[in-house]
Amino acid sequence: MQKTVEIELDDVLTLANNVLTHAGYDSAHASSIAQMLYTCQLDDCQSHGLFRLLMCIETIKAGKIDGQITPVISDAGKAIVKADARGGMSLLAMEKAVPLLIEKTREFGIAAVAINHCFHFSALWPEVERLSQEGFAAMTMVPSHSWVAPAGGTRGTLGTNPLAFSWPRQGGAPFTFDFATSAFARGEIELYKRAGKPLPDGVAIDKYGKPTNDPDAAMEGAMLTFGSYKGSALSIMIELLAGPLIDDLTSLESMEFAEGKSGAPYHGQILLAFDLGQFSNGELARNDARAERLFADITEQGARLPSQRRFAARARNLERGYVEISVGLYEDLQALLP
Amino acid sequence: MQKTVEIELDDVLTLANNVLTHAGYDSAHASSIAQMLYTCQLDDCQSHGLFRLLMCIETIKAGKIDGQITPVISDAGKAIVKADARGGMSLLAMEKAVPLLIEKTREFGIAAVAINHCFHFSALWPEVERLSQEGFAAMTMVPSHSWVAPAGGTRGTLGTNPLAFSWPRQGGAPFTFDFATSAFARGEIELYKRAGKPLPDGVAIDKYGKPTNDPDAAMEGAMLTFGSYKGSALSIMIELLAGPLIDDLTSLESMEFAEGKSGAPYHGQILLAFDLGQFSNGELARNDARAERLFADITEQGARLPSQRRFAARARNLERGYVEISVGLYEDLQALLP
Repeated sequence: MQKTVEIELDDVLTLANNVLTHAGYDSAHASSIAQMLYTCQLDDCQSHGLFRLLMCIETIKAGKIDGQITPVISDAGKAIVKADARGGMSLLAMEKAVPLLIEKTREFGIAAVAINHCFHFSALWPEVERLSQEGFAAMTMVPSHSWVAPAGGTRGTLGTNPLAFSWPRQGGAPFTFDFATSAFARGEIELYKRAGKPLPDGVAIDKYGKPTNDPDAAMEGAMLTFGSYKGSALSIMIELLAGPLIDDLTSLESMEFAEGKSGAPYHGQILLAFDLGQFSNGELARNDARAERLFADITEQGARLPSQRRFAARARNLERGYVEISVGLYEDLQALLP
Repeated sequence: MQKTVEIELDDVLTLANNVLTHAGYDSAHASSIAQMLYTCQLDDCQSHGLFRLLMCIETIKAGKIDGQITPVISDAGKAIVKADARGGMSLLAMEKAVPLLIEKTREFGIAAVAINHCFHFSALWPEVERLSQEGFAAMTMVPSHSWVAPAGGTRGTLGTNPLAFSWPRQGGAPFTFDFATSAFARGEIELYKRAGKPLPDGVAIDKYGKPTNDPDAAMEGAMLTFGSYKGSALSIMIELLAGPLIDDLTSLESMEFAEGKSGAPYHGQILLAFDLGQFSNGELARNDARAERLFADITEQGARLPSQRRFAARARNLERGYVEISVGLYEDLQALLP
């Protein structure tokens, strides 16, 4: 069992803010990033919690991000909110775009945010969950770097291209999922490598385009999408909607832009919000009951709804007032403080 | 090799129209259905071409559909078009909703159609491809009947819940896909059964919730989604967006509504359209080039884009002026003529 350090909830935000501002993010960026890390850490989402501070620091060291830039939100009177992150991290742009998105979703029934020119490192589920608090269903997607081969292909072209979705439930926490369209997350391959374990079949190909179970060969080759040609088609859709649709980079272009440097990838993000009241002609109670019956039919047969583990962790951590991170991460973060 | 009959292109529409009007569909419904069957047949999409006339006839014999009803399209000034099919087939409602959808997509940048109270039997790709002819990206989804178990489950809860997407390409036919979120289509299991072949792993469970390779046991049990828990999450999203969001039935409810009768399921449909011009700030050429580079990178490595076989069949059938259907289907259809 890995040794852990307990951090009180308020201290999570303080720690994140201090690390970020010391590294060169201004207080507005630091605050939006810290809030995202807090939200993930609270749910024991270790891979996207405080651990991601390391990537935020790496990103600023790589020299391309602007940690001080103010995003520009523009409103052309349409159901689309444009948020130009201007080379900063995505989160402040999203934070500033959300109020207008909410207004537009209420006005038009459906609306979208297109974030451009942003560095992106974060989980997507907090952003769609946030909109379910407003009574909206929401969907978001981003490209990444071209580490993933299309079905039938031999080399990386697609990103890990996550898709997140959230549905508001009148009785409690929303139905939310957030998954990479690659079979594995890149970090999972790293974990197999460190553990000296072979990868399962269907996860990766080597640099010659042949199936491989070797984590090293996989890192030199490409990952595969989940679900064969269907997952591959979905991943291509995400490239298109979160890239060329919104005048921003594909995963191929984002990888080139990085010039081999690590850190968060630079690209765009699209988010769609749906107003349940307008789509359902105001029949919220009837349709909430309908959705609940669906969820109940799933859980009654012993299947799990996505995010249930996360919600349980949140309840426990809020109750006890602290989260746990590994000693190794804690020490790494202490070294980044002033 | 199965024996086939050649049918001239004009005769496909005439045959379909005659079968449909003789069975009790009025000319407006017959025409919209015939157009859909023609579009699929032209692309050698045998499972959704003239073959589906049999299901249209079965549906009207089951006694619940109204073959003469006029759909009502309503416009609340929002980015949502409501199309009430009033217990008729979906296609006429979609046909009548599309002009307003196009107008709204041009006006707001993003817009949706929610079709309610419709019987639905058709492929989804022709509807999204149609919108790509207007320069839009489009996405559509429908529930079906609860034949599909969620990941980790033991019985059917979800529909085969297809997702279709289309992206307009300035140089030619769009990028389009249309796939069921079940691992197999229901008809594929029937084909394995007829061929006396065992199903692959991961396609179905028996009525006790155990994995099975036996097509009979699968038909009594449930199908599985593609892509394990990710495919399952996607399928649940489709239930929600094409069901409770738009005040219409889930696959469970649709199955109950059918009361054991066969024919097309009764439920709703949602379709989203995205105006590339507005999302991309008018940068159409730059982003078309971006998307084309992505497609080229996929095909250059020997991977296939979805729908390429279909587009090749279309070109060939348009050139030669006829399509081919099996002798068996031809004879079945002749028996349905006056």
